[in-house]
Amino acid sequence: MVHPDQVVAQQARPRPTLLSMNGVEAKVIEALRKQGEISRTDITNLTGWSKAKTSQKIRELVNKGLLVEVGEGASQGGRRPRLLRINDRLGYLVGLDIGATSLDIALADVGGKICQRRSALVDVRQAPEEYLKDCRALILEMASAQGCLPDQILGIGIGVPGPVDFGRGVLVAPPLMPDWENYHIGDFFQPAFPSAFVVVDNDVNIMALGEQRAGDGAGIDHFIFVKIGTGIGSGIVSNGKIHRGSYGSAGDIGHICVDKQGPICRCGNTGCLEAMAAGPAISEKAMLAAKNGSSPLLRQMMEVNGGVLRPEDVNAACREGDQAALDIIRASGEMIGDVLAGLVNFFNPSHIFIGGGITNFGNHLLVAIRRAVLRRSLPLATTHLAINFSRMGPDIGVTGAIALVNEYLFQPEA
Amino acid sequence: MVHPDQVVAQQARPRPTLLSMNGVEAKVIEALRKQGEISRTDITNLTGWSKAKTSQKIRELVNKGLLVEVGEGASQGGRRPRLLRINDRLGYLVGLDIGATSLDIALADVGGKICQRRSALVDVRQAPEEYLKDCRALILEMASAQGCLPDQILGIGIGVPGPVDFGRGVLVAPPLMPDWENYHIGDFFQPAFPSAFVVVDNDVNIMALGEQRAGDGAGIDHFIFVKIGTGIGSGIVSNGKIHRGSYGSAGDIGHICVDKQGPICRCGNTGCLEAMAAGPAISEKAMLAAKNGSSPLLRQMMEVNGGVLRPEDVNAACREGDQAALDIIRASGEMIGDVLAGLVNFFNPSHIFIGGGITNFGNHLLVAIRRAVLRRSLPLATTHLAINFSRMGPDIGVTGAIALVNEYLFQPEA
Repeated sequence: MVHPDQVVAQQARPRPTLLSMNGVEAKVIEALRKQGEISRTDITNLTGWSKAKTSQKIRELVNKGLLVEVGEGASQGGRRPRLLRINDRLGYLVGLDIGATSLDIALADVGGKICQRRSALVDVRQAPEEYLKDCRALILEMASAQGCLPDQILGIGIGVPGPVDFGRGVLVAPPLMPDWENYHIGDFFQPAFPSAFVVVDNDVNIMALGEQRAGDGAGIDHFIFVKIGTGIGSGIVSNGKIHRGSYGSAGDIGHICVDKQGPICRCGNTGCLEAMAAGPAISEKAMLAAKNGSSPLLRQMMEVNGGVLRPEDVNAACREGDQAALDIIRASGEMIGDVLAGLVNFFNPSHIFIGGGITNFGNHLLVAIRRAVLRRSLPLATTHLAINFSRMGPDIGVTGAIALVNEYLFQPEA
Repeated sequence: MVHPDQVVAQQARPRPTLLSMNGVEAKVIEALRKQGEISRTDITNLTGWSKAKTSQKIRELVNKGLLVEVGEGASQGGRRPRLLRINDRLGYLVGLDIGATSLDIALADVGGKICQRRSALVDVRQAPEEYLKDCRALILEMASAQGCLPDQILGIGIGVPGPVDFGRGVLVAPPLMPDWENYHIGDFFQPAFPSAFVVVDNDVNIMALGEQRAGDGAGIDHFIFVKIGTGIGSGIVSNGKIHRGSYGSAGDIGHICVDKQGPICRCGNTGCLEAMAAGPAISEKAMLAAKNGSSPLLRQMMEVNGGVLRPEDVNAACREGDQAALDIIRASGEMIGDVLAGLVNFFNPSHIFIGGGITNFGNHLLVAIRRAVLRRSLPLATTHLAINFSRMGPDIGVTGAIALVNEYLFQPEA
């Protein structure tokens, strides 16, 4: 078993020598990455270096191309300090958000600013080489449009819709994409992007990272990001860091039991949250309501749709005031809330962010989730708890994927 | 809301000036605390100080009484290095493990070695001043026996059986000890022990710390310590640190719902794990089995006991081969395991340690817990999961309480 902190050594193959640095240099870069711009005095305070040593080290880092000097900071009496920041032109980062049927890619500078963005409909249930060839072609196209050479790509962060052994950077027993089991995505990209450091993580973890990097999760120490769509999963932030657990599988809440007498789940157990409350369960219950006559509207929509109902249809019916649709959505919210209530007692987060395809279901779902959590969690755990839909748009995954690789890019050598 | 890391500023009142130090000094002390003894070369490597600066700093720390030089390390060619360690004589630490009806106290040196130990039967349901006066008298007695003056006590770590707002160091809505709500234990001890830094935490968190400090939890990054007794609670370790959550209430798993149709719990909800599987539930079910004739042995024991059965009696009956007693214990184990299964999916620990009064129930309980977890958790989360009884004896709480205060004692000034 590999400790997640060893990811640098394990997931990444040859490390761009450009970025090699010692512990104290890494600390400077880390501060720059977080604060954007800092002064020489800040660096002196941070490192304990003398003024002379600070000047010398800055010169080295500037010569290496890692830092650039920018404008002038606010004077606090005396000479205006020159500020330093990471050289955004140092190279580029790629964020890849691989969904079951969709692919999102972004090209960003090392500061994390997105400069190129693509989306495509691609089915992940094919051989990984085939899928990744398409990804590679898209990345090369975007790089070319940006005037970026392949070896200027310093990092590729990737989110995948399945359990990841984070230490090794491979999928383990992924139900959606069995052909990808143990396939090393980093190795695939290495020849085309020789300078790139590749980090692979679960898709919900990168959403949590995206929320933390650019959403309402910024600065929050303990939160849970819940993705509700075809499946249900979560990304956990403890003490400001993604908690991946001992084997990288933390956050897999879709298979927590809601009802021992419930339906059989694809995992083999009965009454899993995912089997009872996620998109497919919503569709099934709606089709039942359409067939058994409890909702004429759903029946009508099902006929128009050629005999099926998607979760979006249930949502649309709910907006039209259909009671059966409302009950179905509320029931899902209540089951999700019941599971979250237990996790709130256990984990005591200050925020729960809800994202994924189901977020445009609006307030009925959210209210049902909140009610169930408030009813079942202990007062001490809910007094300061906020449960909201994520306000990040479709860039959340790529933003998180870029933040993921950025986090490991500037690390001191072991 | 106070971030747990601010505990130094919040929980502790005047900080012993003796221990004031800057960030790099604190780093040296931290390494010494973890490794016991280190060489000058280790310190040079750790701090980046020059040899001259290292020598000067060590001289300062030795003069302050923080460090002492000891023996000689193994030579790696050249002069044998002199080793340094924390001066154990610097002062003493007190660990207090406050139970519902029992009190455990230990006096230790700053290295954490216990030199005096007391236990007493005291009921916590009295006014805090009265209770703490007894504690203070015991501590003074132990200190005197050790030849330690009150102001040589540098830290007091305290575990209490109720929810703690860790940032403020006070109990919040503690069901067992309502008079203690918002009572500042640190303030009580300050006049008697003017140099002592006082840290208060939940009793299960200090058990988890004890397991980490001196038990099988040493070096384990992600584990859950579950205490089963009159109540059920847990202490969580994430990335090697206690996860207390945003309000300090993390780990409260006793009120996770097992059965919505279950009995009403003292928290007001129905079907909480604690109400269905902890000691009192075991007693109640056994008394029912005694009364309804399903266990002649339990009936007989109940008559001998004056009309009541304690969990220990159920355990004794089980050892005699009583089927009803066995079923009751297995049912508790299964419910605990069902809840843990969900938490294993969510948190992905590598170890679960089970402690508390129920641990002498032996393997029937443990096997039932393990079975339920293995049946309900995902394979990726259980492949490397070990579930065992804690092997720490009755010192686990005081050991953890001492580790707790020790952790915050040598911290750089803000």
